Amino acid sequence: MKSILRNSCLAVALTLGCTYAMAQEAIKEDFKPSSLNQPGKEYPMVNSQGYARFRVEAPDAKSVVVSLGLGGSGGTVLQKAEDGSWMGTTAGPMDEGFHYYHLTIDGGVVNDPGALNFYGSCRWESGIEIPAHDQDFYALKNVPHGNVQQILFHSPSTNSERRAFVYTPPTYGKDNKRYPVLYLQHGWGEDETAWSNQGHANLIMDNLIAEGKIDPFIIVMTYGMTNEIKFGGLGGFTAKEFETVLVDELIPYIDSHFNTIADKEHRAMAGLSMGGMETHTITLRRPEVFSYYGLLSGGVYTPQEIADKNQVKLIFLSCGSKEGPDRIKAATETLKAAGFNAVSHISEGTAHEFLTWRRGLYTMAPLLFK
Amino acid sequence: MKSILRNSCLAVALTLGCTYAMAQEAIKEDFKPSSLNQPGKEYPMVNSQGYARFRVEAPDAKSVVVSLGLGGSGGTVLQKAEDGSWMGTTAGPMDEGFHYYHLTIDGGVVNDPGALNFYGSCRWESGIEIPAHDQDFYALKNVPHGNVQQILFHSPSTNSERRAFVYTPPTYGKDNKRYPVLYLQHGWGEDETAWSNQGHANLIMDNLIAEGKIDPFIIVMTYGMTNEIKFGGLGGFTAKEFETVLVDELIPYIDSHFNTIADKEHRAMAGLSMGGMETHTITLRRPEVFSYYGLLSGGVYTPQEIADKNQVKLIFLSCGSKEGPDRIKAATETLKAAGFNAVSHISEGTAHEFLTWRRGLYTMAPLLFK
Repeated sequence: MKSILRNSCLAVALTLGCTYAMAQEAIKEDFKPSSLNQPGKEYPMVNSQGYARFRVEAPDAKSVVVSLGLGGSGGTVLQKAEDGSWMGTTAGPMDEGFHYYHLTIDGGVVNDPGALNFYGSCRWESGIEIPAHDQDFYALKNVPHGNVQQILFHSPSTNSERRAFVYTPPTYGKDNKRYPVLYLQHGWGEDETAWSNQGHANLIMDNLIAEGKIDPFIIVMTYGMTNEIKFGGLGGFTAKEFETVLVDELIPYIDSHFNTIADKEHRAMAGLSMGGMETHTITLRRPEVFSYYGLLSGGVYTPQEIADKNQVKLIFLSCGSKEGPDRIKAATETLKAAGFNAVSHISEGTAHEFLTWRRGLYTMAPLLFK
Repeated sequence: MKSILRNSCLAVALTLGCTYAMAQEAIKEDFKPSSLNQPGKEYPMVNSQGYARFRVEAPDAKSVVVSLGLGGSGGTVLQKAEDGSWMGTTAGPMDEGFHYYHLTIDGGVVNDPGALNFYGSCRWESGIEIPAHDQDFYALKNVPHGNVQQILFHSPSTNSERRAFVYTPPTYGKDNKRYPVLYLQHGWGEDETAWSNQGHANLIMDNLIAEGKIDPFIIVMTYGMTNEIKFGGLGGFTAKEFETVLVDELIPYIDSHFNTIADKEHRAMAGLSMGGMETHTITLRRPEVFSYYGLLSGGVYTPQEIADKNQVKLIFLSCGSKEGPDRIKAATETLKAAGFNAVSHISEGTAHEFLTWRRGLYTMAPLLFK
């Protein structure tokens, strides 16, 4: 939208003299390396307005395009600079937060050698971070830190050793306490690394705990694209295989290997996008397992589909303001009217991306296990 | 060497009819996806002889070169195939084990979209695995697994929150035991992810423990390119800043946050390549801290530089057979003659690469804390 406004304004400026708006939209030359760059890499860069600038060395290429750009723009076409590198800046400011992207060099889809990689779209993609005005809540600070533990658990149903990541709070193992557990799922095309790498779930928790805003709990993150979906679409996906891995294999492993409070009252499930769909399906099919349900850009619950009102202590529904929040708000009101403890959160100025979900986790965490 | 032989033989075959040798060297068409490919990706592939085959989509490119190839070959130049993709096979079998590589597409250095990425050469590089005849010792099996814990610790000397990974054995936290600790360092251009991702240190430990070949211990892996070296060479590198982070900040953090036996008798330090250089320097400068020293392709100790023979319980020296092992063997004999408990290991058929170091860890681990 901003780019359209800017281009319109440019046209107006040329004909009618819209100088104020033009000055307002001028690109500030205060670009800094993205916080998600590989160590020592200068590009990609981001400025204080949210513009992203790219620089790629490919001296013999005919064309270099960055997939990131304003909605519908088809990305950012880089131009050959005087030093032989390819450079370009997005046509307007990007939304705050994390964005996946990739390069297309002469038709070949590859990652930006300057940026760190993040698993999304069923591939390791480049990532860039547009600093958000509220980035403090997921910043890496000098506070007591919990650990993110990679575990490998045996799964008889899939005949494999599977991986999960377990966030344990700073006090874990140093007191004799047992902790509640949130099972937290990624979205389609992502994997068990997403909530830590893209989501900073561990830092969000560290900061919430340091500020005394929540009672500490454990978070378990595993791979949700089990068997059925593979790399196709979601048509006909029932989450049945994943339910078996999660409920019958992973939860018993966690409860026998970690200091958990191993009952329904102290167990939550939430997920983003496809992970919300899985949460919806599995919490309803296995009402004896989880007490707290969270769908982050992952659909809604209706009162009719919940057999027993007392099976759930909290329903948390959230999404970005740019992904049609009315459905979330309406569903929350309907649930409340039917007597459920339902809470919604709308992330201002964000779409179906990770800043929406970071804010969702930050808002949901204090509501869990109360 | 094999490619030279093969090319010579080809010339001989064309003129003199060397059919037996040619048949022996024919490429077997039993290529399978590398075990380090991104999920669902077919290429790169490896055959039973150790040839690697690449396929890259870049329809408008003029040139695609893979950096991996036989020594001195300058890599593998891909050719345009009938379907418009770029394909090519290494000129001969590669050494067993893990290799870093990248693509050059029209002069731009990028990663292979088919392969997973590993931090080496101060960048995230593509990785490929040529199955080794002894790969069982680092295979992911249905045995009790330890965890790899990401920790974040505050470092006053560098004014930063720093990351380390801590391998805790399967029994950790489930018994009331305290464990010895090995501090294990990566090489130049790598980081704290290397020993788990490229080295499979956790799987090597899981398997050794499952087979009863070692008493379990903790491994701590952190970033060793602290301050001084950054991304330049090693000239003038003293490891002094790293020594402070490691000995005065990380070790106290580990001893206060994990169930360790917090004394010199139960503390080892080892490292590969530059990490060996750091180990050598720090163990000699701080003889009160570590009892077991390991240099994996990382130089040697001489009896003269060790002030007190009783300060060290084991000196382990290793390297690949292709990186001049005579110096390692000679140094070990000299140390033994001077009364030290010195052990050497030469990895057959490997160079300055991770299979050498996996084998080094596997051989060294049973000798520690005895």
